[in-house]
Amino acid sequence: MTERIAFEIAYDGTDFNGLQSQPSSKAKRTVQDAIERALATIMGARVRVVAAGRTDTGVHALGQVVSFAPPRSMALLDLHRGVNAVLPRDVRVLRVAPVAAGFDARRDAKSKLYRYTLDTCAVQSPLRLRYAAHAPVALDQGAVFAAASLFVGTHDFASLASAGGSVATTTRTVRRSEAWFEGSTMLYEIEADGFLRKMVRSIVGGIVAAGRGSVEVAQLARALDAKNRKAWPAPAEARGLTLVRVDYDPPLAWR
Amino acid sequence: MTERIAFEIAYDGTDFNGLQSQPSSKAKRTVQDAIERALATIMGARVRVVAAGRTDTGVHALGQVVSFAPPRSMALLDLHRGVNAVLPRDVRVLRVAPVAAGFDARRDAKSKLYRYTLDTCAVQSPLRLRYAAHAPVALDQGAVFAAASLFVGTHDFASLASAGGSVATTTRTVRRSEAWFEGSTMLYEIEADGFLRKMVRSIVGGIVAAGRGSVEVAQLARALDAKNRKAWPAPAEARGLTLVRVDYDPPLAWR
Repeated sequence: MTERIAFEIAYDGTDFNGLQSQPSSKAKRTVQDAIERALATIMGARVRVVAAGRTDTGVHALGQVVSFAPPRSMALLDLHRGVNAVLPRDVRVLRVAPVAAGFDARRDAKSKLYRYTLDTCAVQSPLRLRYAAHAPVALDQGAVFAAASLFVGTHDFASLASAGGSVATTTRTVRRSEAWFEGSTMLYEIEADGFLRKMVRSIVGGIVAAGRGSVEVAQLARALDAKNRKAWPAPAEARGLTLVRVDYDPPLAWR
Repeated sequence: MTERIAFEIAYDGTDFNGLQSQPSSKAKRTVQDAIERALATIMGARVRVVAAGRTDTGVHALGQVVSFAPPRSMALLDLHRGVNAVLPRDVRVLRVAPVAAGFDARRDAKSKLYRYTLDTCAVQSPLRLRYAAHAPVALDQGAVFAAASLFVGTHDFASLASAGGSVATTTRTVRRSEAWFEGSTMLYEIEADGFLRKMVRSIVGGIVAAGRGSVEVAQLARALDAKNRKAWPAPAEARGLTLVRVDYDPPLAWR
């Protein structure tokens, strides 16, 4: 019997108050609540899930991973179909994997990949309203590329840590931090062993500030070193951000 | 002074009851009402607009064109900005063009291009829920291509005419009718001098039926010739359809 189960899930974050359940406010719609409610309906008992990334309100996922201990044995295909049949339409289980008893989707994640999309055209298409941020600004591509490269490597990201967050360490290792342009759209991807709360949006806020010329790249580098979050530009808006993928070592046996 | 004005508009059709105002039911939200209300706010008088394509509930537009006679003179840039400032977020004016007094966006359209997107994967990403239809079916690509080619040229499309439609003629000339695949997604584009109500969705319904093998391509060709809409497969769902572009001769002077 499978001891634990992992789901790869995708969701449109627009109409969710983030991933995480909010015990103080049952009225708020969260992805975790939606998954747990669907599991309870299909498995007949309360199930608590752990998610790899705690995405904020308005942030999307193409490949979030959650894990849980099933209260009873059930064929994975039946579970997959059953949960999708009762989930709201804006969240879907894409794949299912059997995992070992000790597996925890958050603690065991080796790296996560986030993508940010920013339209810089004068008028944004309403068909991109949910999935791309918009700022009708001219960006200096050289400054954007230089700013993006600042984050590669192991850094103390205390400058970007959101207020009120409580984490053991603010040091993270970024394996890739790369921006590119497709027409008037700026795309940015970052892969790291972990992320602080609002870290990606803060990084994008810094990169866009450098691209607009409102901050020098060297100044941004100093602000990163300063470990003082007051020195950092404002975070970019949530709707442009998507959690693309979570990787494990060894890879999960998705089916 | 500009006698008439044309707007190129884009909208997410999901939350609209189609393009056209519905005099019998003021409670229904339509794109035409949204545009006319914004124009009345900015220009200070009731304005009636004519649209090139009467898209149905749930159908999107990237390049719909509407025209109207402005009740007073106003700089086009001010009008453009003003209307976008008061329009709901799911509809935008992309470009503006001054047009001659006799111009009518619908009557003068030389051709329209529609695109249809169908995801055939087992589980559709919720980020595609609004802009792509979904059917987890295996499609025979050869049959899809052969079926798509049936519609090129001048045909009497009476077989595909929606019930209750009243048009002078059901004959239309299709300049392009082409399907292709990107991964498990089928894309289809059709360009014609005009379209009957639900014509594109009926054509896609026929193409998909041929791709699934539930109808032979030769049988579809006979059904097209039969000019009897009872012989035709069911239309494809609205959310996969987008009005991409409307062309005029000479082209409009967009700014």
